Amino acid sequence: MNMIYVVGIGPGKESAMTAEARQAMEASDVIIGYSKYVELVRPYFSDKAYLDTGMRKEADRCRMAFEQASSGKTVSLVCSGDAGIYGMAGLIYELSPSWPETEIVVVPGITAAISGGACLGAPIGHDFAVISLSDLLTPWDLIEKRLKYAAMGDFNIALYNPSSHKRHDYLQKACDILLTVHSGDLICGYVQNIGREGEKAVVLTLSELRNTQVDMFTTVFIGSTRTKVIGGKMVTPRGYRDV
Amino acid sequence: MNMIYVVGIGPGKESAMTAEARQAMEASDVIIGYSKYVELVRPYFSDKAYLDTGMRKEADRCRMAFEQASSGKTVSLVCSGDAGIYGMAGLIYELSPSWPETEIVVVPGITAAISGGACLGAPIGHDFAVISLSDLLTPWDLIEKRLKYAAMGDFNIALYNPSSHKRHDYLQKACDILLTVHSGDLICGYVQNIGREGEKAVVLTLSELRNTQVDMFTTVFIGSTRTKVIGGKMVTPRGYRDV
Repeated sequence: MNMIYVVGIGPGKESAMTAEARQAMEASDVIIGYSKYVELVRPYFSDKAYLDTGMRKEADRCRMAFEQASSGKTVSLVCSGDAGIYGMAGLIYELSPSWPETEIVVVPGITAAISGGACLGAPIGHDFAVISLSDLLTPWDLIEKRLKYAAMGDFNIALYNPSSHKRHDYLQKACDILLTVHSGDLICGYVQNIGREGEKAVVLTLSELRNTQVDMFTTVFIGSTRTKVIGGKMVTPRGYRDV
Repeated sequence: MNMIYVVGIGPGKESAMTAEARQAMEASDVIIGYSKYVELVRPYFSDKAYLDTGMRKEADRCRMAFEQASSGKTVSLVCSGDAGIYGMAGLIYELSPSWPETEIVVVPGITAAISGGACLGAPIGHDFAVISLSDLLTPWDLIEKRLKYAAMGDFNIALYNPSSHKRHDYLQKACDILLTVHSGDLICGYVQNIGREGEKAVVLTLSELRNTQVDMFTTVFIGSTRTKVIGGKMVTPRGYRDV
């Protein structure tokens, strides 16, 4: 059977991979991914063939995976974080009708809302939303709408892709929308280089976040009105009753 | 140093645990948790001491962890799924000011939105919200508000705790709220017994979901207007442009 594993490798360090993710890569002949992610796993599976592509070549990468699988090879298509959340699993399924003989297995991984959350404390301990600020594939007005409704619902929010070279002011714009609903004192946080060298977690207010420049390797956390700072950690209680 | 690891063990099967979670439990003298979760890890770490409590005894479990740590033992407090998302990490931090000498490390795990998502295909491939339908610790009117705003923002939604003995009609009530915003044809899904014996994934419409009775071991997925069914899988594309 032709086989593609779509593998979430987590934040990058080996200890944050699941056994299932390791086993999928070990069972594969070829590992395919965005060049940066391929470099993260190559040290652990040095005997595999590797194929990589640059950013924004997601559909090419998926077709490459189907072609390799069709030639009889077992393939792991690797994604940072989870395989499903802004990952390649959806795209693989979208292209799958052209390759009906290929079996697809999605192997979940630790997404940045979870790995970054653990660095900050417990920022998403209750109902939460995950929103990407990248408008490469999503209209900006829909992103704005989601920010507003998530704030109105008093959700904790994890913001992915908060910045890039071309979008250096997107986090600021997002904070301005959140500030139409929330007070500037709302507890927020961000984590840079999760699970990698240079990992850094910062807790700050929404007003302070609005005036902070973060890079593209950052995940941002917006509190709910219940979120507090305890011993320097960002903590959202899991309920609305006192301990 | 007194040490508590708050460990997300994922859905339960060993292969879905991270290496970090395994290492934390291996390094521990005592493993503490809700009795059901303790039973899931006991076979893999048979030489440890175990302490368990029943449901709704979360604060007792945390105090037990601090007491054991204070007596010089290294403790793993285990949570199903992730340690932060509706987990014990928040509660441990809330109680931590009374036990200042104890170090706390949160070890993330695969939450049901991710593990269940992999079973269904790619249901949360784009912006999403996670909402618990349990009103034990959250007022029902806030849950209703969040359901409404999540639907208005066209988020994918993962619903946790969709049912219990006392709340057999909560999923139905939630669907009725979603149906004030979405059409009955919206693609939805649910997964039972994720990663355990009897795992079952079902794709259906919102109207059909409204008339379905699920049990407490179920995670429910609500599509966005972009979600589709491809080869029996529930798939939300990661962008708003065609492949």
